[in-house]
Amino acid sequence: MDSEFMAVPITSRENLSVENPPIKCRMEIFIMRIQQSFCHALEAFEPTAKFLVDRWERPEGGGGISCVLQDGLVFEKAGVNISVVHGVLPKEAVAQMRSRGKLLTSDQLSFFATGISSVVHPKNPHVPTIHFNYRYFEVIDPSGSVQAWFGGGTDLTPYYLDEEDCRHFHLQLKQACNPFGADKYNKFKEWCDNYFVISHRGERRGVGGIFFDDLEEPTLENSFKFIQSCANAVIPSYVPIVTKNKDKPYDTPERNWQLLRRGRYVEFNLLYDRGTKFGLFTPGARYESILMSLPLLAKWEYCHSPSPGSRENDLLQVLKNPRNWLLDEECK
Amino acid sequence: MDSEFMAVPITSRENLSVENPPIKCRMEIFIMRIQQSFCHALEAFEPTAKFLVDRWERPEGGGGISCVLQDGLVFEKAGVNISVVHGVLPKEAVAQMRSRGKLLTSDQLSFFATGISSVVHPKNPHVPTIHFNYRYFEVIDPSGSVQAWFGGGTDLTPYYLDEEDCRHFHLQLKQACNPFGADKYNKFKEWCDNYFVISHRGERRGVGGIFFDDLEEPTLENSFKFIQSCANAVIPSYVPIVTKNKDKPYDTPERNWQLLRRGRYVEFNLLYDRGTKFGLFTPGARYESILMSLPLLAKWEYCHSPSPGSRENDLLQVLKNPRNWLLDEECK
Repeated sequence: MDSEFMAVPITSRENLSVENPPIKCRMEIFIMRIQQSFCHALEAFEPTAKFLVDRWERPEGGGGISCVLQDGLVFEKAGVNISVVHGVLPKEAVAQMRSRGKLLTSDQLSFFATGISSVVHPKNPHVPTIHFNYRYFEVIDPSGSVQAWFGGGTDLTPYYLDEEDCRHFHLQLKQACNPFGADKYNKFKEWCDNYFVISHRGERRGVGGIFFDDLEEPTLENSFKFIQSCANAVIPSYVPIVTKNKDKPYDTPERNWQLLRRGRYVEFNLLYDRGTKFGLFTPGARYESILMSLPLLAKWEYCHSPSPGSRENDLLQVLKNPRNWLLDEECK
Repeated sequence: MDSEFMAVPITSRENLSVENPPIKCRMEIFIMRIQQSFCHALEAFEPTAKFLVDRWERPEGGGGISCVLQDGLVFEKAGVNISVVHGVLPKEAVAQMRSRGKLLTSDQLSFFATGISSVVHPKNPHVPTIHFNYRYFEVIDPSGSVQAWFGGGTDLTPYYLDEEDCRHFHLQLKQACNPFGADKYNKFKEWCDNYFVISHRGERRGVGGIFFDDLEEPTLENSFKFIQSCANAVIPSYVPIVTKNKDKPYDTPERNWQLLRRGRYVEFNLLYDRGTKFGLFTPGARYESILMSLPLLAKWEYCHSPSPGSRENDLLQVLKNPRNWLLDEECK
């Protein structure tokens, strides 16, 4: 079984291979497979660079497997992390969940969480950065009753706008959402546009994708199928964009613009991203796995502003005013 | 009068030159002078690069003067910003001040704040980064009664440890503190070590300096004299260190280590620094002046760890376990 995975799973083989395994076990196996297939899909672009595989345990319970490829030919830094953790829910997390409308009657709550999280920063400024994260969460109260839900999303951060690429990316996500209801893509596309906002600059991090949380309707099984469909769409949504753009020539000003946008990526992740903060402020956090999302290099120039009519400015306009990438008939 | 300054002051000449000017006017004039003398001291190292001067107004009240030198021969990015702002105190700021023990009986508070803030990131990894900030704050309740205080500090972030430089820097700060009480330096040195902590990594940003807030004792006039003494010590504490190290040869691994440490600097500023967050989350914030503190370039390598016995590791040990830089007899 292990050969399908990047490393030995965190949960013991015995516990994973029970009869009629619960969702949490099936989710762990699923994200392990996604981790491997995505790492292999990226490695296929690299003549020599390979993912370094780091299996770690968390003293407070559980652990994870971090796969990182750095300084490749096509990818400057790519991280694909899975984690399977459990313990006592920090007070701040309880407050955060209540503010999202969760009914949590006790303050003494345990949790179990498992998920996959990935950020890929390519070298060529004509290849966008991708991020995706799919996670399953259980909160257990002292009586043993369990609340469970899924969350996640996939989003794209180009440095130069290629409308065809944006359309391709969003169409793949839309098709992954379609079997689960006509409203899903539109709703989660809007949620994504509203989440990845660099508020102080009044701009989005990228051209969006989908984003959602607290998914448990109509059933948890159905929600599991939904996130499987979304996670399975990552490779077809991204790999063709890499293939198309990876060998395009670029010059120093284009590289410079990419580094400046990577600085904005850092601003979003450290100032606003809920997952990064929840991660870093949780005792025993494995900060290297959380900060894997940061680019190898980032730049900040005082008051940089692209000139009107430039391709850099075209991108900025879309980041300030998010667009619908699909035609009306594709959105039905 | 303007020739002493980098630009025309924010407060009108009429209001600044009243007879017996209040502290807020004298503070504004003082920080304008500090801004100019520090900018000139840095420009003296640069054969051609000059500070770009940006005078800006804040629609909600007040404004500032941002001076930035980028891509110089000695300095990669240096920012020296003054601001003079007033308005209604945001609710979060009231809560923050109450949590520090301030007695604020109303929620309808106005504020006036003026200060100077500077970060200098040199090119050569053997020259440390310096940061300083001196500020004056007034909170005015609906009855018109005013609470006022000073805050600030100066701290040093080397990339390679030079104990002589650390001693020189701390001794200058100590001598600036001395006339105001034997305990001041020790107390504010410890405060600095406790403030500039990158908690998730268990390390400090640099080798410290002094840091304090809510200073109004024994009198506000005395506190003003104290921060003047500290701010006047910036040039003698830093300039000799630049002169000594700016022409030292360095190689690519040393430059790489500098960029990695600059990544840590970004982590502290965006995740933990109170001033940065207060600034960015205040409506109408001039984010370019706040984020001037970020380096031109920063780097994140997954799980970078310097080898035992290396000079990089020597620095890391001091960041994990802050030292006293002065001899016992110097601390009396």
